[in-house]
Amino acid sequence: MAEQGLPEGFKKGLEDIIAAESKICKIDGQNGKLYYRGYRIEDLAEHCTYEETCYLLLYGKLPTKKELKEYTKMLASMRNVPKYVVKILKETVHKTTAMEALRTAVSALAGGDEDVKDVKTDYHIAIGNSLIAKFPTLVAYYHRLNSGQKIIKPKKSLGYAANFLYMVNGKIPSKEEARAIDVDFILHAEHGFNASTFAVRITISTLSDMYSAMTTGIGVLKGPLHGGAAEAVFGQLKQIGSVENVEPFVKNVLAKHDKMMGIGHRVYKTYDPRARVLEKEARKFSEGKKSDMKWYRIAEKISQVMQREKNLYPNVDFFSAIVYDELGLPLELDSTIFAIARSAGWVAHALEQYEDNRLIRPLEYYTGPIDLKFVPIGERK
Amino acid sequence: MAEQGLPEGFKKGLEDIIAAESKICKIDGQNGKLYYRGYRIEDLAEHCTYEETCYLLLYGKLPTKKELKEYTKMLASMRNVPKYVVKILKETVHKTTAMEALRTAVSALAGGDEDVKDVKTDYHIAIGNSLIAKFPTLVAYYHRLNSGQKIIKPKKSLGYAANFLYMVNGKIPSKEEARAIDVDFILHAEHGFNASTFAVRITISTLSDMYSAMTTGIGVLKGPLHGGAAEAVFGQLKQIGSVENVEPFVKNVLAKHDKMMGIGHRVYKTYDPRARVLEKEARKFSEGKKSDMKWYRIAEKISQVMQREKNLYPNVDFFSAIVYDELGLPLELDSTIFAIARSAGWVAHALEQYEDNRLIRPLEYYTGPIDLKFVPIGERK
Repeated sequence: MAEQGLPEGFKKGLEDIIAAESKICKIDGQNGKLYYRGYRIEDLAEHCTYEETCYLLLYGKLPTKKELKEYTKMLASMRNVPKYVVKILKETVHKTTAMEALRTAVSALAGGDEDVKDVKTDYHIAIGNSLIAKFPTLVAYYHRLNSGQKIIKPKKSLGYAANFLYMVNGKIPSKEEARAIDVDFILHAEHGFNASTFAVRITISTLSDMYSAMTTGIGVLKGPLHGGAAEAVFGQLKQIGSVENVEPFVKNVLAKHDKMMGIGHRVYKTYDPRARVLEKEARKFSEGKKSDMKWYRIAEKISQVMQREKNLYPNVDFFSAIVYDELGLPLELDSTIFAIARSAGWVAHALEQYEDNRLIRPLEYYTGPIDLKFVPIGERK
Repeated sequence: MAEQGLPEGFKKGLEDIIAAESKICKIDGQNGKLYYRGYRIEDLAEHCTYEETCYLLLYGKLPTKKELKEYTKMLASMRNVPKYVVKILKETVHKTTAMEALRTAVSALAGGDEDVKDVKTDYHIAIGNSLIAKFPTLVAYYHRLNSGQKIIKPKKSLGYAANFLYMVNGKIPSKEEARAIDVDFILHAEHGFNASTFAVRITISTLSDMYSAMTTGIGVLKGPLHGGAAEAVFGQLKQIGSVENVEPFVKNVLAKHDKMMGIGHRVYKTYDPRARVLEKEARKFSEGKKSDMKWYRIAEKISQVMQREKNLYPNVDFFSAIVYDELGLPLELDSTIFAIARSAGWVAHALEQYEDNRLIRPLEYYTGPIDLKFVPIGERK
């Protein structure tokens, strides 16, 4: 009865519905390809920094050397967060998760962000850049405060990725370490009309502001059907514990119709191209390191077994887990690391929505009763 | 070129697209009718309290006398906000607008809401009720702090609407005053898949939580294409100043293709049924009061002229302005008053989304270039 009268072919979740035109991201799920502004993700991950990727996403073209230098410098200059926001973080830090604290702090920045107070034109992009610059600081501060350590102020001389690791761990990372997280950020920076990005666009479609949009993005990304699954992936790697144990573990999971974490993706019918890049990164990065390839080898085996058994491939979260662990990044930060990276995509989509706006307001298909007789309260049963 | 290949009949903003089934609200825009859970809005506005309307929206049926008494008591018991949230409000109050402060405070409540800490089942509905109960407190606290006055704690013995006026103005309102804002809350409580409510549903569709959903709702409602326009309406009433001035003012506005505030609505092709109810309320309420019908008579005349000239009718914001002014409610609170009222609709839709969830993720239609050759940074122009 419920489906009666619904348009033919109606699917829940706006599946297969085109919501808008966009020039930012192309996902070719059939062939496992991903492009930002027309460039292959593999090229960007190999040659760019995260700052360069942000520039590409926001301004629609790759920067020249001079443009990138200026942009990188500008982002670095906007990393500090105002004192009142640090106070707010301190009020919430032992109560809330990292994502909740980030959401609250980003919302609180509205009106008190000194880095944009003198901006007269291009207000939205200025706030967007300021927030991209401040996300890592807020996440690192949360982590330091939550673990009872002193906060470490951002260092202008470090790149975006290196500075994040420095603020979390308290020591300047090696080039190789910084590069690993840089690549991870690039791969997570943008992914079309995913739920958080689409909700960002709805927020802007009422002509609301960039702080509201980014707050929305964090709140939507927070859900386990969307945000980082690296913590869950690593939990499973630890549970498995050895390469030999992969086969029986996976078979048991499949027999119980349970889920292997970090495997499969709604959009990619073949390999997730981001996972392919991160797999190399995880391999390169684990060799002779802390874990001595232990987690990598277990992951590699899971990937082989899942392809053979279910024709399913790892997604981007799968190898992130290994990279984060090697870098000493606490896995409970995984969704916030995703949010840091995705901030660029959110800002790019917010700007595109402003540019050619139309209020986003779909219809519901009403399936309840109609024209009910109002019964006075004394007569209700 | 941009439109090439788009599906036939494609409209921006998901216009005419059915996004989901729903049993909460029926809007009949052609005939100017609005139903909550099958009941005519006119019946609810005449006979119910806001608490009763919340119960109807969240639980799907009108409460018995006993159920309403218990529910009203429960909401009243959850009005206090934790001290750390008051501290956060104090940190932001002189920097941000009322909507920004409300958004931050609601986000900050996550994890520290004592009223839900012992809840073991029906967690989402418990948080929803707690937030419905706390919204007025947060808005009133913002106003008192922002205007340099002491905050006034909520009074359990007062109903939802009366308590809000009491916390803002510092005196217990008359029955008539409380009733006016009660009716205004009922009329704003729910309105289908408007932008904020739809974004709330997207937030829940990732299995994120109620705090995230309500934070999203506030951020989306904040935009001028959505949130309360009462402040702008009242600004225009004051600018006009007299009944005699209405004709020339409106003609001038129309000649310049400017907008008359609070007139017309995307969904209602005839009268907005909520405006019809509020018009009576505004009339009844202005008689012999502060303004002595002055604003009401100007508004009435604008409504007549706009119907004659453009066949456009007042929307719900139009008469709200007069009611708020008579009640001594600061007009800069108008969007937050809307948010207080709409909190019930947001919670109802969040619960419905949880009940039968599917991730909401549409597609984009990519119109940019593809497979661009990556040019090394030194060679870019």
